[in-house]
Amino acid sequence: MVINEIQVPTLLLDKQKCIRNIDSMIEKARENNLVFRPHFKTHQSADVANWFRQRGVDKCTVSSVDMAMYFIRNHWKDITIAFPFNIREVARLNQVDENVNINILVTEKETAVELIKKLERQVGVFIKIDSGYHRAGVLPENHSKIKSLLTLFKESPFLTFKGFLTHSGHTYQAASFREIEVIHQKSIAQLTKLRESFNEMYPKMILSIGDTPSCTLMNDFSGIDEIRPGNFVFYDVMQYHIGSCNLDQIALAMACPIVEKHQDRNELVIYGGGIHFSKEHIEPDGYPVYGYVVKFENGNWHILDKANFLKSVSQEHGVVKVSESVYKSFAVGGVLGILPVHACMTVDLISRILTTKGENIFINR
Amino acid sequence: MVINEIQVPTLLLDKQKCIRNIDSMIEKARENNLVFRPHFKTHQSADVANWFRQRGVDKCTVSSVDMAMYFIRNHWKDITIAFPFNIREVARLNQVDENVNINILVTEKETAVELIKKLERQVGVFIKIDSGYHRAGVLPENHSKIKSLLTLFKESPFLTFKGFLTHSGHTYQAASFREIEVIHQKSIAQLTKLRESFNEMYPKMILSIGDTPSCTLMNDFSGIDEIRPGNFVFYDVMQYHIGSCNLDQIALAMACPIVEKHQDRNELVIYGGGIHFSKEHIEPDGYPVYGYVVKFENGNWHILDKANFLKSVSQEHGVVKVSESVYKSFAVGGVLGILPVHACMTVDLISRILTTKGENIFINR
Repeated sequence: MVINEIQVPTLLLDKQKCIRNIDSMIEKARENNLVFRPHFKTHQSADVANWFRQRGVDKCTVSSVDMAMYFIRNHWKDITIAFPFNIREVARLNQVDENVNINILVTEKETAVELIKKLERQVGVFIKIDSGYHRAGVLPENHSKIKSLLTLFKESPFLTFKGFLTHSGHTYQAASFREIEVIHQKSIAQLTKLRESFNEMYPKMILSIGDTPSCTLMNDFSGIDEIRPGNFVFYDVMQYHIGSCNLDQIALAMACPIVEKHQDRNELVIYGGGIHFSKEHIEPDGYPVYGYVVKFENGNWHILDKANFLKSVSQEHGVVKVSESVYKSFAVGGVLGILPVHACMTVDLISRILTTKGENIFINR
Repeated sequence: MVINEIQVPTLLLDKQKCIRNIDSMIEKARENNLVFRPHFKTHQSADVANWFRQRGVDKCTVSSVDMAMYFIRNHWKDITIAFPFNIREVARLNQVDENVNINILVTEKETAVELIKKLERQVGVFIKIDSGYHRAGVLPENHSKIKSLLTLFKESPFLTFKGFLTHSGHTYQAASFREIEVIHQKSIAQLTKLRESFNEMYPKMILSIGDTPSCTLMNDFSGIDEIRPGNFVFYDVMQYHIGSCNLDQIALAMACPIVEKHQDRNELVIYGGGIHFSKEHIEPDGYPVYGYVVKFENGNWHILDKANFLKSVSQEHGVVKVSESVYKSFAVGGVLGILPVHACMTVDLISRILTTKGENIFINR
């Protein structure tokens, strides 16, 4: 049994839950007649990517050139690098095999000018639109910038404008279903308006949206061509609090050895800290939560009451708050599991994923 | 020149600053007649470790069995693993070459009992004392637990009690020099009182303390035998705000490509996010700071005003707030530097360190 062999913090994947998450999103895309281009930054795994491929998905999204290279080595041939293109990596892009379709995002004229000078292969280009998250992208009303970019793209024989793309990351801060709905509808309205404005020149343009809360919770995608959610493959405690999933849909749990018990404060010290979970946390009730506790039983995990949570992490240490009855059920030298707050960050930190059946899952390391 | 070759976020080390930090702490230990056992979790680097060795340091501290193995492979022969021993790794400990001196921390009777059963090599044992941080360790007044542990240690021919060790991690939350002083004096008082209580049985016991703020700022170590600071080797923005260093002593800066500029909000978007810096941040003025901005010039960096800071990070994106004049001095396609908030977390995340002169620094990967 896997748990008996745990020596150090080990990320476990419930493959059945993961496949169910994949199947649901494939179904959602099919029902809404959407191209499905899942974001692979969440799992960074050729094995998990294969579960998508086995179900007919042949397009993906990544967030770096490095990640694109990994999936190209693993036979993916249609990839969008969903990050404002970093012109310092153009030489790497030029090296990619001709029969791979690469899309990039361009949001700055300086980047377009450098691409015109240095690009040596065909790439598709999306203009990233800032739909209100205010992290990256061009504001949808900034038509003069959009027009300059479109004009620049025409100067290169290697650049083909594909469409407009957005990531409504502000749904992660949404306090209600209604708020997510408002953000989602606003993003769609912005993109479809851009289509109207530029449709004559680019009748085949693609409108692409991305975040897991919208793609999971919404049912109206009218006018949209493509979705790029990523997190849904595993979900996590943050998505649970947003309302995108229930705790039972979370497909990852970190198995952590228990090294100390403190009865005076109903706390357990685990081997499992910031270098395993990241320091990302949420405060749903006014105090920090770095994850919820699960108990391993017969090769599966059983989710405990939310009064049992990871309350703090330092480099290798984690401190877990538990109820009195749960306190008694764990022993020093035993193992408990933590559902992570942010799956993408956690996966990026660890060197290994095992399924609950003990199979090794290959990741980009 | 290094900066011209930066393609992706790259952690740069100013070797001269680092060596100065090392020399100062060696001098501090020498002046106070303390054994110096630096914590190597901050750098995790055989090269940086060699700079200590070249200056006569031959003992070190690490925070995991894995890290101990790395430094053993790199010829370190006297190592304290400063983490409550995780009994699930005892087999790995048994495999360590006989001529390496390993110290571990034991804080639970269950752990001691398992060690008695399974240990096959000599190890030194420290009892970790919780001096008020309330993360891990035995409370100093809990003499009955300390006595049971000491009694158990005697049952094994492989366990040798070495002394009491503490890490006053609560100095990281201290609001003033005076507060650090109070924590430091209290820790020393607790340890020296324990020496008095158990001196008869263990006249050679070692009292060991560890945090960077105390070891940097304090000058009275009466009664203490050993110090184990780690962070001082690089320092970081958090240590600057605690008062342990000035910004010019920080030896690390992440070089990050600039991918977007947003004049309407005086912000730059950089390639450099949570997977490079970690999501650790501080709020010295009520808003989150993930690092301060430096400008690279002639192979060194120049620290800008603190109005220029990394204000948010997602997986690969960072958003940098800058003043109007600084905004004009950076271009899309250029590179800026970020002094990290927490050096230990940042180093753990990256796969490569380069010196500002372009030398590759070997780290545990």
